[in-house]
Amino acid sequence: MILEKINNPSDLKKLTLAERNQLADEMREILVHKIDITGGHVGPNLGFLEATIALHTVFNSPQDKIVFDVSHQCYAHKMLTGRKKYFTDESLYEEISGFTAPKESVHDLFQIGHTSTGVSLATGLAKARDLQHQKFNVIAVVGDGSLTGGEALEGLDNASVLGSNIIIIVNDNEMSIAENHGGLYQNLRLLRETNGTAENNFFKAMGFEYHYVANGNNIADLTEMFEKVKDTNVPTIVHIHTLKGHGLKVAEENKELFHWIMPGTVTQMQHPSSTPAVQSPDYTSLTVDWFLQQKKTDSTVIAVTAGTPGATGFFPDFRKEMGAQFLDVGICEQHAVATVSGMAKGGAKPMFAVLSTFIQRSYDQLAQDLALNNSPATILVYWGGLSGMDATHVGAFDIPLIANIPNMIYLAPTNAEEYRAMLDWSAKQTQHSVAIRVPFGPFITTGIPDTTDYGILNRYQVVEEGSKVALIGVGNFFERAREVKQLLKEKAGISATLINPKFLTGVDADLLNSLKKTHQLVVTLEDGVLDGGFGEKIARFYGASDMKVLCFGGQKEFTDRVPLDELFIRYHLTPELIIKDIQTVLKGA
Amino acid sequence: MILEKINNPSDLKKLTLAERNQLADEMREILVHKIDITGGHVGPNLGFLEATIALHTVFNSPQDKIVFDVSHQCYAHKMLTGRKKYFTDESLYEEISGFTAPKESVHDLFQIGHTSTGVSLATGLAKARDLQHQKFNVIAVVGDGSLTGGEALEGLDNASVLGSNIIIIVNDNEMSIAENHGGLYQNLRLLRETNGTAENNFFKAMGFEYHYVANGNNIADLTEMFEKVKDTNVPTIVHIHTLKGHGLKVAEENKELFHWIMPGTVTQMQHPSSTPAVQSPDYTSLTVDWFLQQKKTDSTVIAVTAGTPGATGFFPDFRKEMGAQFLDVGICEQHAVATVSGMAKGGAKPMFAVLSTFIQRSYDQLAQDLALNNSPATILVYWGGLSGMDATHVGAFDIPLIANIPNMIYLAPTNAEEYRAMLDWSAKQTQHSVAIRVPFGPFITTGIPDTTDYGILNRYQVVEEGSKVALIGVGNFFERAREVKQLLKEKAGISATLINPKFLTGVDADLLNSLKKTHQLVVTLEDGVLDGGFGEKIARFYGASDMKVLCFGGQKEFTDRVPLDELFIRYHLTPELIIKDIQTVLKGA
Repeated sequence: MILEKINNPSDLKKLTLAERNQLADEMREILVHKIDITGGHVGPNLGFLEATIALHTVFNSPQDKIVFDVSHQCYAHKMLTGRKKYFTDESLYEEISGFTAPKESVHDLFQIGHTSTGVSLATGLAKARDLQHQKFNVIAVVGDGSLTGGEALEGLDNASVLGSNIIIIVNDNEMSIAENHGGLYQNLRLLRETNGTAENNFFKAMGFEYHYVANGNNIADLTEMFEKVKDTNVPTIVHIHTLKGHGLKVAEENKELFHWIMPGTVTQMQHPSSTPAVQSPDYTSLTVDWFLQQKKTDSTVIAVTAGTPGATGFFPDFRKEMGAQFLDVGICEQHAVATVSGMAKGGAKPMFAVLSTFIQRSYDQLAQDLALNNSPATILVYWGGLSGMDATHVGAFDIPLIANIPNMIYLAPTNAEEYRAMLDWSAKQTQHSVAIRVPFGPFITTGIPDTTDYGILNRYQVVEEGSKVALIGVGNFFERAREVKQLLKEKAGISATLINPKFLTGVDADLLNSLKKTHQLVVTLEDGVLDGGFGEKIARFYGASDMKVLCFGGQKEFTDRVPLDELFIRYHLTPELIIKDIQTVLKGA
Repeated sequence: MILEKINNPSDLKKLTLAERNQLADEMREILVHKIDITGGHVGPNLGFLEATIALHTVFNSPQDKIVFDVSHQCYAHKMLTGRKKYFTDESLYEEISGFTAPKESVHDLFQIGHTSTGVSLATGLAKARDLQHQKFNVIAVVGDGSLTGGEALEGLDNASVLGSNIIIIVNDNEMSIAENHGGLYQNLRLLRETNGTAENNFFKAMGFEYHYVANGNNIADLTEMFEKVKDTNVPTIVHIHTLKGHGLKVAEENKELFHWIMPGTVTQMQHPSSTPAVQSPDYTSLTVDWFLQQKKTDSTVIAVTAGTPGATGFFPDFRKEMGAQFLDVGICEQHAVATVSGMAKGGAKPMFAVLSTFIQRSYDQLAQDLALNNSPATILVYWGGLSGMDATHVGAFDIPLIANIPNMIYLAPTNAEEYRAMLDWSAKQTQHSVAIRVPFGPFITTGIPDTTDYGILNRYQVVEEGSKVALIGVGNFFERAREVKQLLKEKAGISATLINPKFLTGVDADLLNSLKKTHQLVVTLEDGVLDGGFGEKIARFYGASDMKVLCFGGQKEFTDRVPLDELFIRYHLTPELIIKDIQTVLKGA
């Protein structure tokens, strides 16, 4: 194995071209095996494998600085920079992050997981270098799919006038997670078709020196090009045409599916079982079904995604069936929010489906373009809640983000019926900008249609009346509140009141005031950070009264792949720990 | 007067070209007179006056939809759409908004004041039109300065693939508020120099049909071009070259100064007094002086702006003196935050100066690119606080926005010495991402240097010890807390404890716990909305204790040019009203 000889990027320089090619084959096999067991990003990593070898052959990391945009293409980089054991030793598989991680290695410069960030970060490194009169190469690696993000475009516009060394590798695999969307991609195609010679060139128009490598999976070609642009003093684009999933037939043939896979997917696709698994209903399928149903009677309902259709269940069949009533704007959450505002003002019924971690990219558009204008569009926020995910993808911040914007109505359904009723209401009403926190967790159905009029704002639902203690369980954590209620009865003989607030954006003053008569303590439970969240509003409401308030939720911190069970203990979020805290307060009262 | 005949845009169609030209002269004179009295945007409005007449001559608003990006160029539009009296009658001057306002007229489609939003909003209108099989023109008017904002670039990328009518007027006056920055502008210059014929064309690369009008202040040329592109079904750019401040010599010659002016500026510039007013020190001049001082000993300190240098006192002299240690990235707050993160990681000492309302455009970059990476960059947040400004520019939301992001340290100085000490500390430390809320209001100096070690996080300062009531006055509102203390002594004989928290991002648990012994009530005062803000953290902290908490600050709402005095009464923020609320709580206790 060639890989055995590689402990540092500098070891690559001693290899022959043939050995480097063999190394790529070895690494590909290891990567596929590893990802099939752990899950992870297949397509981006396989597509950029050869380029990574070429980069580390030509440049001298960490003296030269390589910034990976999104960094879901950094596995090969990790293998070549002292971390190969995490890919070869199955017992260590879970110990390595799927994204660049400065904690792991000096070769990783930033913890990154959101797209379109790399060019700006690299431009900053280059500027700092110039201010300090240092000399090294700064390289940013950015995928074509990331180019449509506003931050990337802003970065390109500034990188090109840096006046010194910056090399931006545009890894063009003709794909975002799904297909690319936007006018820019016509120009990338033109550039590919003309072997980079077309006069009309987006990158040149942005002010860059431009180079093209037709076979971006060819180590020799890439090495030659990187040698050419190394140490130059002109902001430079190296546009390389790569194949997503290169070298793994099933990934090359199913590019969207193999962008990121669940464990076992490669094996399963290569040896499909005769009976496909029956999918049980979940909130994603409910949403998809709701859209298809709406489409039958309303030609103005439109499902919008910003480059992550699969994450919200908008698979190719759905997209095809929705036709003009589906829109993928590409990775550009700012535009997505602004344009659904425009659509809503124009009389359509747009719904933008987006992950909690990515709605963060459009705070100002939610505030200015949408809520200030009371445009009746709907934002469907997926994956909102505490989780064991990477720090870059945790969805714990959307309540503080959205719920403190004036005019926004942020709804938190607790089961399928409520969620459906909220979708129906939001699509019908014309007064408010609405966000719905799509339940994240087990699918819960009551079997009883929800007939609530959500036009009566901030009316909480008392699900079970009790006394002494009131439990307000928000969205995903409503069922937890129910468990707490039961345990509180068993352990302390207290019949607590159980409340489903439904609205995250306001307090039900009448209800909260009425609790004062027969309750000593109000407990809030929310699936997200406490700072700036729902519970604090309740605490402020009761601040000047005798009512005690206990808020349960996450602490203000970036958790990085910390298992959820561990977080629940850390934050006192198990029913047992909650009861304990409640009893402490009641004893003191 | 021709203007007398114009009550609706349709009246324009009856005019001869000569009359339209005369109308432009009349309107210019009226506009200059009005703006010189009230203050407002001069350059953008004068530059787009002729184009506005041409637009309303050719298109049929409100059937055709015109969306103004930023909308600081909409005065002529307002005069032509039934609102001329607000420009001719001095007694009505203050009744009209300086931005498009749907409340005022059906010809105004969105309330807008942030840049780079228009293309996306217009694209949404067009998409809604297409879904409903309607037929009209959608026109977006966007300045060249706005083009570098990520949202605008995202919008262009999507507008070009709309597949139907959308006309984007690029109003190229060769200026942002100050000079333009970024590689894109080289291409705009090339297009101007080649009369729009250059092969390498940013807009064509983005997928648009492209037209150029060399004299964008010529009504005949503009009218001809608009007629040509009207009712076509292809996404189209009309790039018009205009002169900022056109027709007002002093504005043409001082473009940056005359972007937006204070009342009286035109008169003053045309008849300068012999003795220039002496500028008294303020927080802006303090900051500028601090940078110039730092530069003498540290070549890595760098002042960054995103297209609003004047708003933070970075005037041409300062920029020149800072040299490479000043950077204007253009209007692109996302890039600004990400790139200062990169600079800080690279060993430089960047400080990004930005208005509160515009830092909203980079939440995700603050969270992911900056704070997650603990990059030791500094964000200087100006104009943070309640104000009588337009809803689009109120700076009441930055505390909830920034202070709930993990790892961020958000500091709120209350006087010049503290602010300077915080600048010094932040520039020196290498562990934290820091934001400083630059005091907004009267310049306060104690004369005593602040020697606090801000590396000890979340330590509040007890300024005066008392009992029963503790007043926590945040940043701009610290002096108000001091007034409340005095009044409380006078009116109720209570010697309240006075606290300056300094840190917005955490609670001083030791101090807050210690207050429990001798205090019944903690009062927080903050200059911003309460929802998600500082006071709620204090309320949550004391939630399960006997301590009462009263939070004072703004309500969650978009206030639009509501005078500050009125807001102070609405929110119970005068010392008298605060005392009243305190006494009510104490009586109930």
